[in-house]
Amino acid sequence: MSSLVRFGVSLEKGLLEKFDRLIKERNYTNRSEAFRDLIRQEFVKKEWREGEDVAGAITLIYDHHRKDLLSKITDIQHNFQNIIISTQHIHLDHDNCLELIAVRGNPIEVQKLADTLRSIKGVKHGTLSMSSTGKEIS
Amino acid sequence: MSSLVRFGVSLEKGLLEKFDRLIKERNYTNRSEAFRDLIRQEFVKKEWREGEDVAGAITLIYDHHRKDLLSKITDIQHNFQNIIISTQHIHLDHDNCLELIAVRGNPIEVQKLADTLRSIKGVKHGTLSMSSTGKEIS
Amino acid sequence: MSSLVRFGVSLEKGLLEKFDRLIKERNYTNRSEAFRDLIRQEFVKKEWREGEDVAGAITLIYDHHRKDLLSKITDIQHNFQNIIISTQHIHLDHDNCLELIAVRGNPIEVQKLADTLRSIKGVKHGTLSMSSTGKEIS
Amino acid sequence: MSSLVRFGVSLEKGLLEKFDRLIKERNYTNRSEAFRDLIRQEFVKKEWREGEDVAGAITLIYDHHRKDLLSKITDIQHNFQNIIISTQHIHLDHDNCLELIAVRGNPIEVQKLADTLRSIKGVKHGTLSMSSTGKEIS
Repeated sequence: MSSLVRFGVSLEKGLLEKFDRLIKERNYTNRSEAFRDLIRQEFVKKEWREGEDVAGAITLIYDHHRKDLLSKITDIQHNFQNIIISTQHIHLDHDNCLELIAVRGNPIEVQKLADTLRSIKGVKHGTLSMSSTGKEIS
Repeated sequence: MSSLVRFGVSLEKGLLEKFDRLIKERNYTNRSEAFRDLIRQEFVKKEWREGEDVAGAITLIYDHHRKDLLSKITDIQHNFQNIIISTQHIHLDHDNCLELIAVRGNPIEVQKLADTLRSIKGVKHGTLSMSSTGKEIS
Repeated sequence: MSSLVRFGVSLEKGLLEKFDRLIKERNYTNRSEAFRDLIRQEFVKKEWREGEDVAGAITLIYDHHRKDLLSKITDIQHNFQNIIISTQHIHLDHDNCLELIAVRGNPIEVQKLADTLRSIKGVKHGTLSMSSTGKEIS
Repeated sequence: MSSLVRFGVSLEKGLLEKFDRLIKERNYTNRSEAFRDLIRQEFVKKEWREGEDVAGAITLIYDHHRKDLLSKITDIQHNFQNIIISTQHIHLDHDNCLELIAVRGNPIEVQKLADTLRSIKGVKHGTLSMSSTGKEIS
């Protein structure tokens, strides 16, 4: 963990009062912690546009009764095994599954994996959570 | 304009150095100005979710040769005249027009106007820019 | 305008019924029109990632009483005049202005202009609406 | 699985050709599958705005060396155990962890959990993936 630096910030009184209410509402312990979060959000967006090594999660919703669906999803994951860390499978009801795939690697490849999984016949919905390896935002 | 309040913020050394580079890249004059922007972005999102009085812009792209299109767009704008401030019309080429509609009012009504305009046959694309009246973020 | 092609689409009965309700709610005249919109949204996103010539709008909220603010905003707009088509200025109240700038050109330059304007001291909020020249989505 | 309904859609020739290329690029098996996806995306957005029962994933990046951090994250997860299905923990490097939390329940509560976890001192980044239980989009 890197050392802390303290510096002054000037804000309009009214804006600061509103910000303090927002901080309380969202349970931040103090202003510095809230600023840190706002800054890190900007950097994570930047990592996904310009970076080489990102982390995140792909979610898939699908009906596991669909013929060949499970084997297709598994095949593709094997083709991308260099960027998949692990997969978590949840049975939402008799038909629907939620799959959470932890991913790490080049942002373009991760995006490609998400697009490929999402486009499989029988996959009802897919999302890609863009997060970070944490190294560049500490 | 409300008075300025100065207070201290603590950030990890590495994160602050990266933030300073970002500030420079985006031409902010100083850290306070960059923080102000990050805060205001949060508040504008909140105004659109919970507020009563927002401002913004609707953009439309359409082919003005489409029969009855111009009169439909104008009719709808008249029905929503209480939330439309003014409209700017740009000829992109022989066929395509860009229309910028400055809007202000209740966020649900503004969203409804944007949806209604976007769904007209012949409108190729529509966006809604969610901004603010400025009153709550100064 | 290019000629129409008709083709068949298969959808789950339940999903189609829900889609028909959505279409009604958003005032689309028919399913084809709604599909057209969904497709064009995808293409406009693609144009901004990969294209050369896009159109859109920048919105700014600022307090015109701020010293030198108007001249700074105008100076910058002149430096980017090759991508600015026109500007619309609205007085929201005694202090706050809404400025709508119609833009067209290379997506990276348009983004740069938006970032530069947004970072000026005194500009309270800025948005960039990503639309299209219409040529590639007809 | 509900029965399939087939119906006709009309699209501009140029737009359809571009759409076919996009479909190929993203590996969809046919147009119907691509349309299904576009429609479902709209419905999932709607579920999160208006629905009662959604599913998704929260991602967290944090440094597990931070004092008390692990116990705080665990405490909060216990307070929200009615909406948490399971949690997956990945060691990204010596310091950084990626945690994937599968969630299901009321969208407002899920959002509140995400905000609460994200605001803990030491959590570097958090995302909320908005997906679906799959029931309403089949």
